[in-house]
Amino acid sequence: MAERRLRLGMLGYGTVGSGAYRMLEDNQASIQAKTGTRIEVARIGVKDAQKPRDLSPEIFTTDLDSIVNDPEIDTIVELIGGTDPAGRLVELALNNGKNVVTANKELMAKHGSRLVHLAKSKRLDLHYEAAVGGGIPLIQPLKHQLAGNDVLKMMGILNGTTNFILTAMQQDGADFAEVLPDAQAKGYAEADPTNDVDGFDTMYKISVLASIAFGRQVAIEEVHREGIRSISKVDMKYADVLGYVIKLLGICEPVGDRVRVRVHPTFLPKTHPLASVNGVYNGLWLHGDFVGDVMFSGRGAGSDPTASAVVGDLIDVARNMAIDGPGSALPYDPDMPTESITTLRSRYYIRIRTLDRPLVLGKIATAMGQRGVSIAAMEMKTIVPHEEGEIVFLTDYATESDFREAVASLTAEVGVSKVHATIRVED
Amino acid sequence: MAERRLRLGMLGYGTVGSGAYRMLEDNQASIQAKTGTRIEVARIGVKDAQKPRDLSPEIFTTDLDSIVNDPEIDTIVELIGGTDPAGRLVELALNNGKNVVTANKELMAKHGSRLVHLAKSKRLDLHYEAAVGGGIPLIQPLKHQLAGNDVLKMMGILNGTTNFILTAMQQDGADFAEVLPDAQAKGYAEADPTNDVDGFDTMYKISVLASIAFGRQVAIEEVHREGIRSISKVDMKYADVLGYVIKLLGICEPVGDRVRVRVHPTFLPKTHPLASVNGVYNGLWLHGDFVGDVMFSGRGAGSDPTASAVVGDLIDVARNMAIDGPGSALPYDPDMPTESITTLRSRYYIRIRTLDRPLVLGKIATAMGQRGVSIAAMEMKTIVPHEEGEIVFLTDYATESDFREAVASLTAEVGVSKVHATIRVED
Repeated sequence: MAERRLRLGMLGYGTVGSGAYRMLEDNQASIQAKTGTRIEVARIGVKDAQKPRDLSPEIFTTDLDSIVNDPEIDTIVELIGGTDPAGRLVELALNNGKNVVTANKELMAKHGSRLVHLAKSKRLDLHYEAAVGGGIPLIQPLKHQLAGNDVLKMMGILNGTTNFILTAMQQDGADFAEVLPDAQAKGYAEADPTNDVDGFDTMYKISVLASIAFGRQVAIEEVHREGIRSISKVDMKYADVLGYVIKLLGICEPVGDRVRVRVHPTFLPKTHPLASVNGVYNGLWLHGDFVGDVMFSGRGAGSDPTASAVVGDLIDVARNMAIDGPGSALPYDPDMPTESITTLRSRYYIRIRTLDRPLVLGKIATAMGQRGVSIAAMEMKTIVPHEEGEIVFLTDYATESDFREAVASLTAEVGVSKVHATIRVED
Repeated sequence: MAERRLRLGMLGYGTVGSGAYRMLEDNQASIQAKTGTRIEVARIGVKDAQKPRDLSPEIFTTDLDSIVNDPEIDTIVELIGGTDPAGRLVELALNNGKNVVTANKELMAKHGSRLVHLAKSKRLDLHYEAAVGGGIPLIQPLKHQLAGNDVLKMMGILNGTTNFILTAMQQDGADFAEVLPDAQAKGYAEADPTNDVDGFDTMYKISVLASIAFGRQVAIEEVHREGIRSISKVDMKYADVLGYVIKLLGICEPVGDRVRVRVHPTFLPKTHPLASVNGVYNGLWLHGDFVGDVMFSGRGAGSDPTASAVVGDLIDVARNMAIDGPGSALPYDPDMPTESITTLRSRYYIRIRTLDRPLVLGKIATAMGQRGVSIAAMEMKTIVPHEEGEIVFLTDYATESDFREAVASLTAEVGVSKVHATIRVED
């Protein structure tokens, strides 16, 4: 039998691209044994073909369209990121009959349904395991092994940068502004950290997971998104005393026929399995109606773990081609109906400064109680003695809209000079 | 378009079978939406067709061969367990052109390579996600998303019964014999607990995982196996003081071109992610050359979680049939070469009784040192004051064969009256 070959065109050769190239080289023998196919990188598209690299320059081109149009290439690995030109190139590749493996969370969050339907109609593979959770298998288990479940809740630490920053704040008792430069120096945060610290990256990822779990694409505009810039070391300390850690979570949950998707810092009990996912590690916890609780964790970013996911997808492509499989893209429809965050019922952490502590407690409790929010008084404590008049408490369950009204009512009239922080609590 | 149907024959209707039936009913609409196929249970084979059950009696038959030979049935779900008649029926089903989904770890551990090759040659699906880790996706992620990695180590808590018992011993300070009846009363342990507590179940499961990870079947006869009957609450307590928990682990690791597979109680540092997998939960931790550390956990047994895995596999069968996919059995070859436990380099915990403590320490250290085993003296301590002359220590790294010789040398001559326990340590 002639040796089967899979000829790849790679778009992008940054950390993930070079990692994937190296993995295909280093583990070539075992990958070939598992697939019966020799996976070869034929062409690599880059911005600057002259930049010194560890490969012979002939493999590189700046003409990305020429790769996607090359009839000798049967599979495209898209590692450019962003939607333009990545989206156009992926679409062109599929229209040209090429399988696609991508690590592009933004593209899949914005155009996933359309692209997967296109792949399906062409009987091609479109895989994107690397788009969420780096090397941790998440997307395919959700599509396959867990697919019989109704997902009742899903919570993920999906961004390594923010988890690194929050973990450092927690362990070193430092503020966000102190930790960020260190994260940048270590290469864990970008010079412009907006995409990570303001929760965009987590938003793309939880949207992709929610779209798979619920079978219809969640519009990212309908995801409630808050980042971690406003988290202070004081809140970290209160969280610790109260038995919690603060994590940036992507959360999704069905509400009737709708789904609510949100990204925000969260008080998570120290006993929750996600609470011990620290540093640049990612984790996904989900509760399904039959499987119960399942948890996945591992390195959610970086060259080698992400390359692991890309190569895993390529192995599936190679196997499908070997058996003349007609592609395994699993489409989901557009327009998942969503539920607003305002109907959320949650407990809340709140930290305020009062004008005159002994007198105002009753006024605050009354003002909040009138808006349907009761204080879980047992939790009322203060641990920062020099911050005079600072009060921290946890509320009982209340709706988000009631809570917002209650917070708005905490003015000088009831003796509150400043609301420092409000953070949702998962129990 | 006519509605597509997948007609199932189920062999066995115990806890997993009834769970799978219920899941297919309860989540029928969403499963049909995801697969475009209506999955129907056509026949169920049982031992006693007259036993009162929650389904109409016509669906049951005691003639299991008639199900496997029924031309109207396209997929068999095997939930009998054991190798006979399950093995014969699975083989017959495949030879009759039927896809097979099984939860049978013993069958796959003993005959996996042969059966998967048979399925592959017939272009049929043979899935067995439920055989290991209940509802936790493990087998398919290892075959697919992680398949590009060389697995450098894999450790799993794969048996809920023993993990429940060990967790109870640890939390209640109780001995094995005290906890076992409670586990039996709660339905977590069988009347004859041999299969679980002596490590057979874990042996089957880690063998299946190792066979997939290394691409060739590991003969179970070559797996080193120890159970948990000899673990005492005293050892639990020492483990705690020394910073460890005791878990029954299935472990596999490559040694050159061979693989060493072992099942035994293990001192695991409290900081290891598997250390907090408690009760009936299972967990698998693995280290791959590119992905780094990945961890999976969840409910590893029971009606509903195992049903989740069975139905996940059926969803894949339905999708493959819908796209005229020619089957996705991923074969592995027989005869993986194995490495003996005697060449293992490990640290060890050892608890002994001495005849006269102050005098014998030097003799013991000398006797062990002469066999190449040094005592990590810093760890020498005793916490059970009434057990006079009891000494506990951890060794430095030594080979298993040296350690065994060293233990054999601990006789009355060097002042040792009894070796209570030796347990391997993972660091």
